[in-house]
Amino acid sequence: MMLTAYKIETRPQLVEFVERKGKGHPDTVCDALSERLSVELSRHYLNETNMILHHNVDKAVLVGGQAKPEFGGGSVTEPIYILLVGRATGKYFNNGNEHIVPIGSIAIKAAKDELRRIFRFLDPDQHVIIDYRIKQGSVDLVGNFNASNAVPLSNDTSFGVGFYPLSDTERLVLNVETYLNSKKGKDEFPELGEDIKVMAFRNGNNVTLTVAAAMISKLIGSPSEYMEVKKRVTERIKEIASEEKRLNVNVIVNNADNVEKGIYYITVTGTSAENGDDGQVGRGNRANGLITPFRPMTLEATAGKNPRSHTGKIYSVLAREIAQKLVEENKRISSAQVYMLSQIGRPITDPLAVYVEATGEISQDALHSHAESVINEVLQRRAKELWKDILEGKVELF
Amino acid sequence: MMLTAYKIETRPQLVEFVERKGKGHPDTVCDALSERLSVELSRHYLNETNMILHHNVDKAVLVGGQAKPEFGGGSVTEPIYILLVGRATGKYFNNGNEHIVPIGSIAIKAAKDELRRIFRFLDPDQHVIIDYRIKQGSVDLVGNFNASNAVPLSNDTSFGVGFYPLSDTERLVLNVETYLNSKKGKDEFPELGEDIKVMAFRNGNNVTLTVAAAMISKLIGSPSEYMEVKKRVTERIKEIASEEKRLNVNVIVNNADNVEKGIYYITVTGTSAENGDDGQVGRGNRANGLITPFRPMTLEATAGKNPRSHTGKIYSVLAREIAQKLVEENKRISSAQVYMLSQIGRPITDPLAVYVEATGEISQDALHSHAESVINEVLQRRAKELWKDILEGKVELF
Amino acid sequence: MMLTAYKIETRPQLVEFVERKGKGHPDTVCDALSERLSVELSRHYLNETNMILHHNVDKAVLVGGQAKPEFGGGSVTEPIYILLVGRATGKYFNNGNEHIVPIGSIAIKAAKDELRRIFRFLDPDQHVIIDYRIKQGSVDLVGNFNASNAVPLSNDTSFGVGFYPLSDTERLVLNVETYLNSKKGKDEFPELGEDIKVMAFRNGNNVTLTVAAAMISKLIGSPSEYMEVKKRVTERIKEIASEEKRLNVNVIVNNADNVEKGIYYITVTGTSAENGDDGQVGRGNRANGLITPFRPMTLEATAGKNPRSHTGKIYSVLAREIAQKLVEENKRISSAQVYMLSQIGRPITDPLAVYVEATGEISQDALHSHAESVINEVLQRRAKELWKDILEGKVELF
Amino acid sequence: MMLTAYKIETRPQLVEFVERKGKGHPDTVCDALSERLSVELSRHYLNETNMILHHNVDKAVLVGGQAKPEFGGGSVTEPIYILLVGRATGKYFNNGNEHIVPIGSIAIKAAKDELRRIFRFLDPDQHVIIDYRIKQGSVDLVGNFNASNAVPLSNDTSFGVGFYPLSDTERLVLNVETYLNSKKGKDEFPELGEDIKVMAFRNGNNVTLTVAAAMISKLIGSPSEYMEVKKRVTERIKEIASEEKRLNVNVIVNNADNVEKGIYYITVTGTSAENGDDGQVGRGNRANGLITPFRPMTLEATAGKNPRSHTGKIYSVLAREIAQKLVEENKRISSAQVYMLSQIGRPITDPLAVYVEATGEISQDALHSHAESVINEVLQRRAKELWKDILEGKVELF
Repeated sequence: MMLTAYKIETRPQLVEFVERKGKGHPDTVCDALSERLSVELSRHYLNETNMILHHNVDKAVLVGGQAKPEFGGGSVTEPIYILLVGRATGKYFNNGNEHIVPIGSIAIKAAKDELRRIFRFLDPDQHVIIDYRIKQGSVDLVGNFNASNAVPLSNDTSFGVGFYPLSDTERLVLNVETYLNSKKGKDEFPELGEDIKVMAFRNGNNVTLTVAAAMISKLIGSPSEYMEVKKRVTERIKEIASEEKRLNVNVIVNNADNVEKGIYYITVTGTSAENGDDGQVGRGNRANGLITPFRPMTLEATAGKNPRSHTGKIYSVLAREIAQKLVEENKRISSAQVYMLSQIGRPITDPLAVYVEATGEISQDALHSHAESVINEVLQRRAKELWKDILEGKVELF
Repeated sequence: MMLTAYKIETRPQLVEFVERKGKGHPDTVCDALSERLSVELSRHYLNETNMILHHNVDKAVLVGGQAKPEFGGGSVTEPIYILLVGRATGKYFNNGNEHIVPIGSIAIKAAKDELRRIFRFLDPDQHVIIDYRIKQGSVDLVGNFNASNAVPLSNDTSFGVGFYPLSDTERLVLNVETYLNSKKGKDEFPELGEDIKVMAFRNGNNVTLTVAAAMISKLIGSPSEYMEVKKRVTERIKEIASEEKRLNVNVIVNNADNVEKGIYYITVTGTSAENGDDGQVGRGNRANGLITPFRPMTLEATAGKNPRSHTGKIYSVLAREIAQKLVEENKRISSAQVYMLSQIGRPITDPLAVYVEATGEISQDALHSHAESVINEVLQRRAKELWKDILEGKVELF
Repeated sequence: MMLTAYKIETRPQLVEFVERKGKGHPDTVCDALSERLSVELSRHYLNETNMILHHNVDKAVLVGGQAKPEFGGGSVTEPIYILLVGRATGKYFNNGNEHIVPIGSIAIKAAKDELRRIFRFLDPDQHVIIDYRIKQGSVDLVGNFNASNAVPLSNDTSFGVGFYPLSDTERLVLNVETYLNSKKGKDEFPELGEDIKVMAFRNGNNVTLTVAAAMISKLIGSPSEYMEVKKRVTERIKEIASEEKRLNVNVIVNNADNVEKGIYYITVTGTSAENGDDGQVGRGNRANGLITPFRPMTLEATAGKNPRSHTGKIYSVLAREIAQKLVEENKRISSAQVYMLSQIGRPITDPLAVYVEATGEISQDALHSHAESVINEVLQRRAKELWKDILEGKVELF
Repeated sequence: MMLTAYKIETRPQLVEFVERKGKGHPDTVCDALSERLSVELSRHYLNETNMILHHNVDKAVLVGGQAKPEFGGGSVTEPIYILLVGRATGKYFNNGNEHIVPIGSIAIKAAKDELRRIFRFLDPDQHVIIDYRIKQGSVDLVGNFNASNAVPLSNDTSFGVGFYPLSDTERLVLNVETYLNSKKGKDEFPELGEDIKVMAFRNGNNVTLTVAAAMISKLIGSPSEYMEVKKRVTERIKEIASEEKRLNVNVIVNNADNVEKGIYYITVTGTSAENGDDGQVGRGNRANGLITPFRPMTLEATAGKNPRSHTGKIYSVLAREIAQKLVEENKRISSAQVYMLSQIGRPITDPLAVYVEATGEISQDALHSHAESVINEVLQRRAKELWKDILEGKVELF
């Protein structure tokens, strides 16, 4: 591993743009379905073979449906179509015995379960067609047996990046969507669908926070009720925003509404996917849940990749964790950005290069030595175990 | 328009990672097909109505096929499957007369024409299944007629970013792929397929340049011929790299080859898509043709979007052009980064905000005034006309 | 209407072959889904417009899945895929108002409801992917309004045929499948799946009755239990067969079983479609529920066609009803075969030609006059109302 | 083999209905594509293994496209979609070596080649999307090696039926379509598309012959030209009809034309599939090329089935050949109908039962003995070799 740790000066960031596509946004839905498929495949492989067999299901496309939302009701007229794409081990041989992996059934079930987890009013059996085109390979486990406990080798040349801490604006965006899509948020505003997009544009201390939130048509009886809900949601968001003391936040909700033309953002299912909005994997939030064009980002999708050996996924998480540890474990470091590069064929615990940028009162040497120790610890203790947390859904990936 | 121009100090970038997915890479292929579809739809709309009607075809997924490449031959055993996704105006009424837009036929033809433009050995009629799921809307042109010459309104809140100039490493990556996939490059190395991925990792002045280039199996008779071609390609790349005087470049081609195991990167068609590599729109190169995690990037895909009104596409191009103009037209500016933010419903010539960061010997005030003048000129003269160049294929988009 | 009634001599039929594909057979499933879709569309159209708008959804293909049935359990590894195909009115205008018909949602729901009606152990949400490619047209109701009570015009040149009574062998085949797939049959043999194919080969008085019945794997613990169920089923079939006094029936159940090789006809879901058996509309039973190569048959599929105006469907039913009436209402007629031919554009109550063949003690003239009266009555009183019974599921169609 | 040969009295057939769906009809197209796929798979298997490995690709669905035909031109606006369905051996092992069968590539190529063979103006690369869902199995050839020269065992309980000679009306229908779709017919009437449906309704000696023939729009400049072509075609058909001396034939071409409403049967590609007419395998012509509800018919589709072992295909051909031989080789037999029934697991040369009905001056005994000898000869000499003629396209199958 080639480590470069570099102390940089704090630079004022005058302008900032931050976005989060909420959990019901078509792109996030694709992420979630691909990731869930990877998780369920991994669990199946583990149960049957004690190994996570090869798979990479990090592509999917969602074709928006058609719907007629109406105050107090409405219906979906053409279902959403989702195509899951990738490769997975569909057959393995153990002591000469052939074992079939029910890829298709796992894919359908994983997708539907995940849709039920995300949405309250989208019925995967009625509103969605789930299809899949997953190429299936086979493997003889004999040759791989001893490899099961070994450190996995990186199966691609990939790149991960992470930073810590979030800026005020980033935290604000994350908090708003997280609250509105939380259990508590839904108890307060059952009328709010899950497709909530939050965008913040900061100029100096002034933030324009634009929220596009699909409302549930059948829970809202009339335009006036809609306007009332929107007003209450706006108030709640302002309250959340008031926690960011350094920011003056102007909150705008559903800016495209047009009372005169009778245009309101209502949906039957809680997502714009019901009426023409399409989606794909890896087109939305990065591993920290945000889109931050003023920050380093990788284009690797984390969703759907092998959690044990794909460094595009693993390093995206580890880089963030390293950045956080660097800051939290050394008071003289106020912020850190971490870049990690793998090389195909190298153990995942031995990246080709790690690059750290940090700000703070620390000396260059102290930074380097602290970085080295943190990184080594994370690589040795965390890199090999991360997949367990991923399978348990404990790791934020998009 | 809110303009913020800010002079920043030059900061040494110790480490850099730059990638380009060549024109035959599955992700780039998806970009190209979506964009070509948008171009052909736009042309059709223009021919028939003098307007570019609504469309957004910025999603597609490519499901890799299966192939048996062999030295001196080989065959594709399962074709590649490509699903084009989006929305487009499929019908319009003019003076009460209904006109059908042949969306399906345009989609199939555009995709095949584009595949033929990209590849020499991939036959779209034999090696690929093109399917589409494009939702079709209709429009009555009467109401829109006067709007045809007006400045289009932004149809989304989107973000574009660009910078200038490229770093040495970025230029290197771009030049290598561009040459190898040029007419001249193919004349020199007909054995090289179009799926060429170039990655550069720079640490200080030392660059490791990794090139993964699919070879055409039928043009290479044996492993030794393969090794010979690879050697000559490596030499040529080194020559190109030698133009970057400040860099020491170590060139590695097809690193996963393994002579002992008989593993060589050969393909029947020139792309890894023939054997299991999947692709999607917007997962590869940004609008400048590169993936640059150390630089600001947007996650907006440019491909497939309406060239006249979608600011996610237009501002990605304009931001780059503005950055270039800022530097080229003022010797005291050595580099610039430009961020542009639109707001739904605003004219595309009037972004909500533009943010400029520049380095150089220039004063803050002079920078602001120069930026203002450049931006205004670009917005007034270029923003409305850009779509013409896009339709003629003159604008780099991925 | 051109009527030809012709008295023929009774001719001994030495040999007979009769088949019925039970309700869970892949072909019959396709019939059922297409028909159910036509019924649900018709109901929707009626509710909304008081008319049955144009539709023809008489095509569908079922792609068999993959399964691993095991005694006491088993699982589906790749779901069944069903593609519904046809055309339907997707939009209508009434007094200038546009109304959308939710074709897609109706199709998905109809298919799943029907699958639930047919099967006990096939879960349409888990074991099946339902997709559709239905071309949608639109209609302006104004021009059609007065037509709603008129006699529909035949929309194709089609042909229907029917006969009465069934032969002993035909009745036997029908009774066996009907019993085994009845509520009572399932109570007696819950282990029997719904995919039950019954074939009878009669030579003189000797009938070989071959029954292929998919068993439910999870309800059968072992090969010996399987053999026990099979034995009991065989006994029950013999009992049913004993009702046909003129026939000596040899009953064979699941003839392809092979105890030595461990081959038994067990399934997870009750249908061979779970493991590779494909299906289509119109490839199985004729309108009387049977395949009878020694009898006149039409190749028209009844399933999925417009119940009010498609004579391929309507005449298939009416011909059978006319034959029955001819025999039941005149003791001197012992059997009848009825052929009906429509012409595109003629009222369905006025076929181009009807041809009657009958046996019995009746004179040619009396036959003709009786036929004329029966046919006129059926055409005048039944032809226009038949669709009501079809929508209520009261008419056997396959 | 159980043989029943039975002499019956000649019975006047007062009324007759005969139909032929021409080679460009959507159903016939599906037949042709499935059959061609079987042929190409068989050839591949033979070339590679000297055996015809297991396959059954007898399902397919065609979803009609959309087109705008215009006199002198026109275009297809939405391509036709064809889904090929079935099962085939996708992998085999020979001496431990794995061999891949390029099912997908064979399927796509076979379908396009066949479409090119059928049509002059339908471009499979432009007007059609070919997709496939073919389940792939694998086989180890070792165990099967000795079986390659053995008589194949029937892999299903199937039924074939054939008769000889054709009636006057049947011959007429066949001749009309065959001529109009022949090289000579196309030279005479290039304007005639390939989708030609011929229906004959005979009452006594009077035949109404209805021909629906798709015309090629770009070859016809105007309605008056259209009417002129139609007139000439009608004259030619009358000429062909005049060969049937015993029939008075009334010829009607494109009966749904309506000059006042500007409705003419013109197409861009020569088939109604371009504009909404759907198709399936096995829904059209029987093995003798005709639909004859007054004659015995089987519902088995011949297309797409294994030509060496599937008796549903083989017996449909052999029954017709036996009937012909019975009549041609014995002057005292004037007509014959032959029914053949296989049993799963029996050699194809040993049907479970054959039933012969014949008319003529022959005694019952002589008929039986003649039938026995003809059938034995056909079974011994022809049954095993028929597949060769099928692979060479020498056998009429639909």
